[in-house]
Amino acid sequence: MSTTEEYLANNETYAATFSGPLALPPARKLAIVTCMDARIDVYAILGLRRGDAHVIRNAGGVVTEDTVRSLTISQRLLGTRKIMLIHHTDCGMLTFTDDEFKREIEEDTKIRPPWAPEGFSHLEDDVLQSMRRIRVNPFIPHTGSLRGFVFDVDSGRLTEVK
Amino acid sequence: MSTTEEYLANNETYAATFSGPLALPPARKLAIVTCMDARIDVYAILGLRRGDAHVIRNAGGVVTEDTVRSLTISQRLLGTRKIMLIHHTDCGMLTFTDDEFKREIEEDTKIRPPWAPEGFSHLEDDVLQSMRRIRVNPFIPHTGSLRGFVFDVDSGRLTEVK
Repeated sequence: MSTTEEYLANNETYAATFSGPLALPPARKLAIVTCMDARIDVYAILGLRRGDAHVIRNAGGVVTEDTVRSLTISQRLLGTRKIMLIHHTDCGMLTFTDDEFKREIEEDTKIRPPWAPEGFSHLEDDVLQSMRRIRVNPFIPHTGSLRGFVFDVDSGRLTEVK
Repeated sequence: MSTTEEYLANNETYAATFSGPLALPPARKLAIVTCMDARIDVYAILGLRRGDAHVIRNAGGVVTEDTVRSLTISQRLLGTRKIMLIHHTDCGMLTFTDDEFKREIEEDTKIRPPWAPEGFSHLEDDVLQSMRRIRVNPFIPHTGSLRGFVFDVDSGRLTEVK
């Protein structure tokens, strides 16, 4: 059985005991921005219940134009008011520089990506960088309760960055 | 206790029984692209285990430049080879048009967003649209096993879009 087929079979089991519909707007008025890393099961690490919070994830959990798009829709159309930003230890984004990664892609494809890969060299600094990008953005109305964290993939523990 | 404080207390409980480190590259070589919607607990709906797959999420689960950035890093640096794309019923992206949302933001902030909100009017069509955007992108090397789905938020069930 392929990986995808295995997960589809798991979904049959999930649907069989599914507890029914919930409202579209997040119940706890929270949006979480974090990395795509496979070791971050956001619902488990925070004890989120289904329906509680928007979860926005990309490579690094960095704040890009698309993160701004998602947070703008989250707050303006779906009523969230709080943001938690979570980076993590042992992140893949710490393993390359943008210049070298773009050069590798150009060597392989003959096309240089017109976007920044957004690699970073210091975890806590990049949490603060991402928080600043949210605070200065004119389209995200509610940034007063924004908080930033690092998730330790070896201990499972969150530590706030201030 | 604030929402964030409550989740941080939940995290203490999580860390207390944490089962220890896993490798950085996703064990099942899979990347999942889906919506930020609060009702989609990706690990639960697919029976994912911690460490199995990258999870990329934004408003709509649409394929933007940032999604391409994340998938490129996922495949080229962290060894994933498969992609599952998941949209869902009752999606917020079905409730507005880009023009009207941009006009509302401009009326409020006096600044017109320079990005597309990416609202859509037909769920299955947008799954296919997102799949096409992945297939034609020159930077994502492995698109042969790409599959697209709709998650039904009322039943918990995934249906493939072909």
